[in-house]
Amino acid sequence: MKPVIGVGMVGHAFMGRAHSQAWRSVSAFFDLPVVPSMAALCGRSPDRTAQAARELGWAAAETDWKQLVKRDDVQIVDICTPGDSHAEIAVAALAAGKHVLCEKPLANTVAEAEAMAEAAREAAERGVQAMVAFNYRRVPAIALARRLVAEGRLGELRHVRAQYLQDWIVDPEFPLVWRLRKDKAGSGALGDIGAHIVDTAQFVTGQNLTGVSALTETFVKERPLAEGSAGLAGESRTGEKGTVDVDDAALFIGRFEGGALASFEATRFAAGRKNALRIEINGSKGSLAFDFEAMNELWFHDHTLDGDEAGFRRIIVTEPGHPYAGAWWPPGHGLGYEHTFTHEVKDFLEAVAAGTAPSPSFEDGLRVQRVLAAVEASAADESRWTVV
Amino acid sequence: MKPVIGVGMVGHAFMGRAHSQAWRSVSAFFDLPVVPSMAALCGRSPDRTAQAARELGWAAAETDWKQLVKRDDVQIVDICTPGDSHAEIAVAALAAGKHVLCEKPLANTVAEAEAMAEAAREAAERGVQAMVAFNYRRVPAIALARRLVAEGRLGELRHVRAQYLQDWIVDPEFPLVWRLRKDKAGSGALGDIGAHIVDTAQFVTGQNLTGVSALTETFVKERPLAEGSAGLAGESRTGEKGTVDVDDAALFIGRFEGGALASFEATRFAAGRKNALRIEINGSKGSLAFDFEAMNELWFHDHTLDGDEAGFRRIIVTEPGHPYAGAWWPPGHGLGYEHTFTHEVKDFLEAVAAGTAPSPSFEDGLRVQRVLAAVEASAADESRWTVV
Amino acid sequence: MKPVIGVGMVGHAFMGRAHSQAWRSVSAFFDLPVVPSMAALCGRSPDRTAQAARELGWAAAETDWKQLVKRDDVQIVDICTPGDSHAEIAVAALAAGKHVLCEKPLANTVAEAEAMAEAAREAAERGVQAMVAFNYRRVPAIALARRLVAEGRLGELRHVRAQYLQDWIVDPEFPLVWRLRKDKAGSGALGDIGAHIVDTAQFVTGQNLTGVSALTETFVKERPLAEGSAGLAGESRTGEKGTVDVDDAALFIGRFEGGALASFEATRFAAGRKNALRIEINGSKGSLAFDFEAMNELWFHDHTLDGDEAGFRRIIVTEPGHPYAGAWWPPGHGLGYEHTFTHEVKDFLEAVAAGTAPSPSFEDGLRVQRVLAAVEASAADESRWTVV
Amino acid sequence: MKPVIGVGMVGHAFMGRAHSQAWRSVSAFFDLPVVPSMAALCGRSPDRTAQAARELGWAAAETDWKQLVKRDDVQIVDICTPGDSHAEIAVAALAAGKHVLCEKPLANTVAEAEAMAEAAREAAERGVQAMVAFNYRRVPAIALARRLVAEGRLGELRHVRAQYLQDWIVDPEFPLVWRLRKDKAGSGALGDIGAHIVDTAQFVTGQNLTGVSALTETFVKERPLAEGSAGLAGESRTGEKGTVDVDDAALFIGRFEGGALASFEATRFAAGRKNALRIEINGSKGSLAFDFEAMNELWFHDHTLDGDEAGFRRIIVTEPGHPYAGAWWPPGHGLGYEHTFTHEVKDFLEAVAAGTAPSPSFEDGLRVQRVLAAVEASAADESRWTVV
Repeated sequence: MKPVIGVGMVGHAFMGRAHSQAWRSVSAFFDLPVVPSMAALCGRSPDRTAQAARELGWAAAETDWKQLVKRDDVQIVDICTPGDSHAEIAVAALAAGKHVLCEKPLANTVAEAEAMAEAAREAAERGVQAMVAFNYRRVPAIALARRLVAEGRLGELRHVRAQYLQDWIVDPEFPLVWRLRKDKAGSGALGDIGAHIVDTAQFVTGQNLTGVSALTETFVKERPLAEGSAGLAGESRTGEKGTVDVDDAALFIGRFEGGALASFEATRFAAGRKNALRIEINGSKGSLAFDFEAMNELWFHDHTLDGDEAGFRRIIVTEPGHPYAGAWWPPGHGLGYEHTFTHEVKDFLEAVAAGTAPSPSFEDGLRVQRVLAAVEASAADESRWTVV
Repeated sequence: MKPVIGVGMVGHAFMGRAHSQAWRSVSAFFDLPVVPSMAALCGRSPDRTAQAARELGWAAAETDWKQLVKRDDVQIVDICTPGDSHAEIAVAALAAGKHVLCEKPLANTVAEAEAMAEAAREAAERGVQAMVAFNYRRVPAIALARRLVAEGRLGELRHVRAQYLQDWIVDPEFPLVWRLRKDKAGSGALGDIGAHIVDTAQFVTGQNLTGVSALTETFVKERPLAEGSAGLAGESRTGEKGTVDVDDAALFIGRFEGGALASFEATRFAAGRKNALRIEINGSKGSLAFDFEAMNELWFHDHTLDGDEAGFRRIIVTEPGHPYAGAWWPPGHGLGYEHTFTHEVKDFLEAVAAGTAPSPSFEDGLRVQRVLAAVEASAADESRWTVV
Repeated sequence: MKPVIGVGMVGHAFMGRAHSQAWRSVSAFFDLPVVPSMAALCGRSPDRTAQAARELGWAAAETDWKQLVKRDDVQIVDICTPGDSHAEIAVAALAAGKHVLCEKPLANTVAEAEAMAEAAREAAERGVQAMVAFNYRRVPAIALARRLVAEGRLGELRHVRAQYLQDWIVDPEFPLVWRLRKDKAGSGALGDIGAHIVDTAQFVTGQNLTGVSALTETFVKERPLAEGSAGLAGESRTGEKGTVDVDDAALFIGRFEGGALASFEATRFAAGRKNALRIEINGSKGSLAFDFEAMNELWFHDHTLDGDEAGFRRIIVTEPGHPYAGAWWPPGHGLGYEHTFTHEVKDFLEAVAAGTAPSPSFEDGLRVQRVLAAVEASAADESRWTVV
Repeated sequence: MKPVIGVGMVGHAFMGRAHSQAWRSVSAFFDLPVVPSMAALCGRSPDRTAQAARELGWAAAETDWKQLVKRDDVQIVDICTPGDSHAEIAVAALAAGKHVLCEKPLANTVAEAEAMAEAAREAAERGVQAMVAFNYRRVPAIALARRLVAEGRLGELRHVRAQYLQDWIVDPEFPLVWRLRKDKAGSGALGDIGAHIVDTAQFVTGQNLTGVSALTETFVKERPLAEGSAGLAGESRTGEKGTVDVDDAALFIGRFEGGALASFEATRFAAGRKNALRIEINGSKGSLAFDFEAMNELWFHDHTLDGDEAGFRRIIVTEPGHPYAGAWWPPGHGLGYEHTFTHEVKDFLEAVAAGTAPSPSFEDGLRVQRVLAAVEASAADESRWTVV
């Protein structure tokens, strides 16, 4: 029988539900060296947490994350809270010898992220692992994109254009939920979805951004107050309005280490685009294009083919040889959003079991944070070129 | 606390794994009146069944389906075996007072299907429910298509064109697995995937096919023998060849009750098409198009709009108001193949709890079987028009 | 200086305008051995013909096609009238030693088409050429498709599915124009657009259909009478209704010489589909897909590639090495509908100048006619298999 | 009979051929108040110009543009030369009382463009018209986009993202043609194709850019010398290399007058993208998307529809009510690249005949030039925000 490893999770809203499905499913599809046990779920409200634990399959419920971290049956702490609490929980859990999987963005500030990366480095020396949850790396199509770039199929990279387009706050009456509050979320579209495209672009290219020039904007400057602060769903409205102190959209152009030019855009005001995380990369030997709204497809242009028969081809990324795909269904039977989390915990568990560093590391999360900080600095300084 | 209802499943290959994920996940996403308990899994090999039960989350393992049916902790029997055993198991389970969820096609012959439908009718009088597992009805986009047709948005239906295109046996060296053997599978592409598009088309239109004219073909008439017989994956090959006695492809044209013309095609020889279950419907007021390879999208043309701004629109079927979608993730965060099964068991459990007839019924499964039989009869008689 | 060859055209409605643009443009883009001169246009109304000649660039106007055929400055007769007059004009023109380009379908009956093919054979012995105007063969993407099939890139052909979908008579108040009258048009969707997909499929595959099983339907059986009879545009309406005596839609399945299964559908009732001439071909080594609504694209799946990177690729058929494309604009600067006619007259003029047989021949046109006749025969006889 | 107006054209390479087709075809499709006569073509080489005149349908040939401008049979001067000669020819032609149609970019510098705009203003007072040839405004889909924005269908504009992606110089051995030389072309991708997206975006939004922050890059800094300098086609190569002194790619972000955020990218290094002029606009009530590689399609999302049935719809812009489309073929029979020029001369001729100012004016061309200059200034100054 395989060894069991206990998981304790903090937070049970959107991310908590997604992570729960991953912990619940991973052993049924992947032959892992360890079996995760869903030991305990932590939330603020006793009732709601108990109910969530029951629904989501957690054996116990806690209301104080410090208790959760102390539990003997917890070897992994999975942090699914808003960004303002990441640093405190992660640093404490690592100090307590617990492996940590932490939602993105790693933190709300570079300083916090630095402290976390430092804690992770120290923990690693003790064999304790930390990983930041940039789940889109585990979309099979994006992992395949990374593989094609790494194999040199694109040649020298010339262009990266990345967009993350949503439209859930186009309506000015959409309330001021926590994701629109700087104290909770750190920033707006930039940190929430901009962080994803920065990480995805750096992951797929295998290169870091060296500098940026940026614009940010808050189109709707006041919104109805919501009673609570959780999640994407609107809260009950009181008639009062509050100030939106985060960006609605962020655009920037930049350069990668290898010389490629890049453009990035993160917005929640792209009417009709629901979750369009898009990336297109052009190189001297080929190009790639991806849009999460059709997440099982990767478009690949092989520029070394005869021009008369070349073209962007739609690879349906469900073949046995594709990253992660072989564990699931026959070709053409696509995966969904939540599978990215299943793949994430699969890789995390394998790293933990092997005692190796999981990826993306807290250091990677910090690197993204530095890009976000450079974007904000540039936007505040007449879009001036800002080194990351 | 909600009442628990025990499930026993027969078969743990492709369909068994898909159903397991559904039973495992459904309570985390849907607020059901009952909680399914994964009581026991039945397979032929003790070792492999025990291992599958462990991996897939079943509490016990059985090697005789008759024992499974007898178990007190089993109130639902879920049949995931090849078609040749459906009738025997289903009839016995219903007789034993167990609710039955049976994979499609309902049976390998019309006679078997009739016996099953008869057993289901009798069981229903005793409050015992039966359902055939045409899972594609539970793709949100297909359920939305049904809704739009039912609301009259397409007007009078004129055309239905349905295709189910796969390519997994294009290679003549692909072995003679059970799905290519008449004794196990009943027919080839026709019963396996043709059954799906017949059911889907009848479901979405709300109408039955009244007659057909058909062609079938076996392109590769001999294939290497496989040691075993299970699933899509190739078995070890012995060098010997065996005869393929099922169709590789089936085409037919037909008419629906309401006067629409229809064409159907099921094939495993459409190189490059992986799981392209496609349906397009044209009516006097609008049209719909769907392709499972992009399963989160439904294309809708509203012909009542001003012609200058009309066109097929890509509805990403992940909105809270879309069938099933609200239980999962925010808009644009798509679902995958397996979710169709989760929706299926959700609807089945609700019907069982309410004591109402789940849909599609065994009668619906029989109706599909009659269409398949008419197709085979027409193909064997110079494509002559054959009434269903 | 290049020799000049005089062209006389009969008919100046839709096809006449398209052919005029071809004759007017061809020398500017293709380096031909002869220069066409637009000598005379023939129509029934003196005034309207004179005006059309002026607008479309014809040097003279005639109102009797027999006069046109006699003109010394006319060496080519281009027939753009409805199908009921094709045979008489073409046979007379060929007898008079004039090369003939004749719109499709070649004729309204097999008997007429046979007479025309016979006349063309005799004329060919005298060095007089005849060609039927299946213009879609000259879509660069379709010509490229033919090339790929001929080069063996698809291997053995398994499936052909062809559709020609329009929606211009969905409205039951659309009037009874000549295309909806059997005496003028011979048949409905079948002869008008069905003829195109039969020819296109036979051209691209390089194979003939050997038999069919068919359904036809007239959804709207009476329509308002139109004063005149010309073209697609509605005429003034008188309140009276007349009987539609042609098919609104025709579906058939069939087999090609090489064993491929085929399905065809021609309809004017596919709401939202404007001019969707579609063809998909699956072979043992690859597949092709085309839709005229995106006429500059050919989708090619190379099944011999590694499965992990295979997929349908979108070839934008505007490269210098693509058929016809090099004569026009740089890559990515697409062509339109009318260019198919320019390519058609280019190929026709080259054949005439070289004294070789142009393609498609009247014999090819007759072959299509025989398929249409078989379709009608099968549809009238319970869809029974009918040999072409 | 309609009055005739004589046209003299300078240049007979790519643009000259496109304009010739427009002058040749326009009267056959549009009922214009005047009939253009293709009076004379001007080029540098007597032989090549004479041949081009013959092929393209010009009545006479000239080798000195000053002679062309003086001709009595020329009332319109159409300038199709590289940007370095635009100012001199245009100013002289306007001074001589000739209406001027001038290819884009209007000039190679802001100073030249200012002089031209000034000359045009003066000429307009004398009833002499001037127009800059931003032909993409005359793509029916783009004109329809403008109409939808003007009608308020998008509401308040939030985002504009425009790209013009080509790949014809990805190969470092592609020679140093005139479009890669600053003295001839003024700039590289920026002025050639960046100018188009700036104009297109300003046209469709009806707003001007107020400022930009930019990056430019020359990926391949030396290229083989070509003997000549004309056009896109490679010249014979001498083995020697020369310096590329223009940009290969230009990226910038900016803001529109109305507050929308914008991103622009022009590159000739997007492997696999042939002529992808793309624009997407998001507003508070709807969105639009366009890609010239599918030039007959406009994608429109109506955000005021019920969310359950909203989605980007593919409008095939070939309906009678669509801009320009009614003059051509039935719905679904698409247009090509060259039609944009036919529409351009149609609008120009109508304005000339009516004595009204054609659009886009030289002032509009100057405005684009100022944006290009701001882009270059920002790129040279650490991407600093630069007011247009």
